[in-house]
Amino acid sequence: MRGLLLLADGFEDTEALTTRDVLTRAGIEVTTASISDYQQVQSSFGVDILADALLKLIFDITPYDFLVLPGGGRGTANLEASSIVQNCIDKFVKYDKYVCAICAAPSILGHRGYLKGKKYTCFAGCEEGIDGIFTGNEVEKDGKFITARSMMYSVPFALTIIKELLGEQVAQKVEIGLKGQHKK
Amino acid sequence: MRGLLLLADGFEDTEALTTRDVLTRAGIEVTTASISDYQQVQSSFGVDILADALLKLIFDITPYDFLVLPGGGRGTANLEASSIVQNCIDKFVKYDKYVCAICAAPSILGHRGYLKGKKYTCFAGCEEGIDGIFTGNEVEKDGKFITARSMMYSVPFALTIIKELLGEQVAQKVEIGLKGQHKK
Repeated sequence: MRGLLLLADGFEDTEALTTRDVLTRAGIEVTTASISDYQQVQSSFGVDILADALLKLIFDITPYDFLVLPGGGRGTANLEASSIVQNCIDKFVKYDKYVCAICAAPSILGHRGYLKGKKYTCFAGCEEGIDGIFTGNEVEKDGKFITARSMMYSVPFALTIIKELLGEQVAQKVEIGLKGQHKK
Repeated sequence: MRGLLLLADGFEDTEALTTRDVLTRAGIEVTTASISDYQQVQSSFGVDILADALLKLIFDITPYDFLVLPGGGRGTANLEASSIVQNCIDKFVKYDKYVCAICAAPSILGHRGYLKGKKYTCFAGCEEGIDGIFTGNEVEKDGKFITARSMMYSVPFALTIIKELLGEQVAQKVEIGLKGQHKK
């Protein structure tokens, strides 16, 4: 399994990197792709990271099973303003692949019309003006769209993706490993 | 308030970066310091990040209020093997500043004898051979030592640090912000 995680300047640190962390523990390969012309991307809270790839050079999305859009106010605005990103989202939807978004990022899908008639969640207020069924739950899944409310739910967001792609048992095994607890 | 977060190759992604994320939301400035001769550090799960500083060039720790040691098996081993890191921990203890460690990293403090007679927690198994009071709780605080069990508890780990440094109210306000929920 293989996922594509988009990084724009201002991406919310935990929403991108904890999601990636948990997915990787399930054996899923996650490619981070910078949406700019540079590999270096700066998080919402000022961490400089080097992305694995440049989105503009990913011409074929067929090897990827799902897309992840992290939130963060500025990161989301930067993703939404990019035609390369919009084109990438359109391709994932067209090829019936999973599209996963957290915090402010589900609004990008909403503004594009993809959440119409679909249950979704997002950070309080980001649902305004979106034609869709906002639930306000921590994590929501409807068809191929998986959404989460905020950075606090990055772990269940990732576990939901794992459950969809690899099944309940794998997700449970990963979750146990995260907790570092002695067996009872 | 100002914290120093040490990064060695193999640091656990969430334990370092979510902790930093949450602390930063409280207005605490967190300096990430690479323990090697290079600013670039690779996380446990393969993310390349650029640290703010090199630990070997931080000669004066007095501006810092606390130290954070993230875990990860390899990251912890790399921290523990470094004389610069051991010297840094010794200085924070000597100056009676907070020393915070998560997952496998509390074992470094234990091996150095700092947890004797103190309540602490860590990832299951990492307490072996340590002279201290292992509780296995999610987060533990005893004197100036704050420890947490695993990456799953990075948020409460950071909130406990905030509570100690800035008080309960600030910690609560930050926690509410993390959840992105509509007011009830």
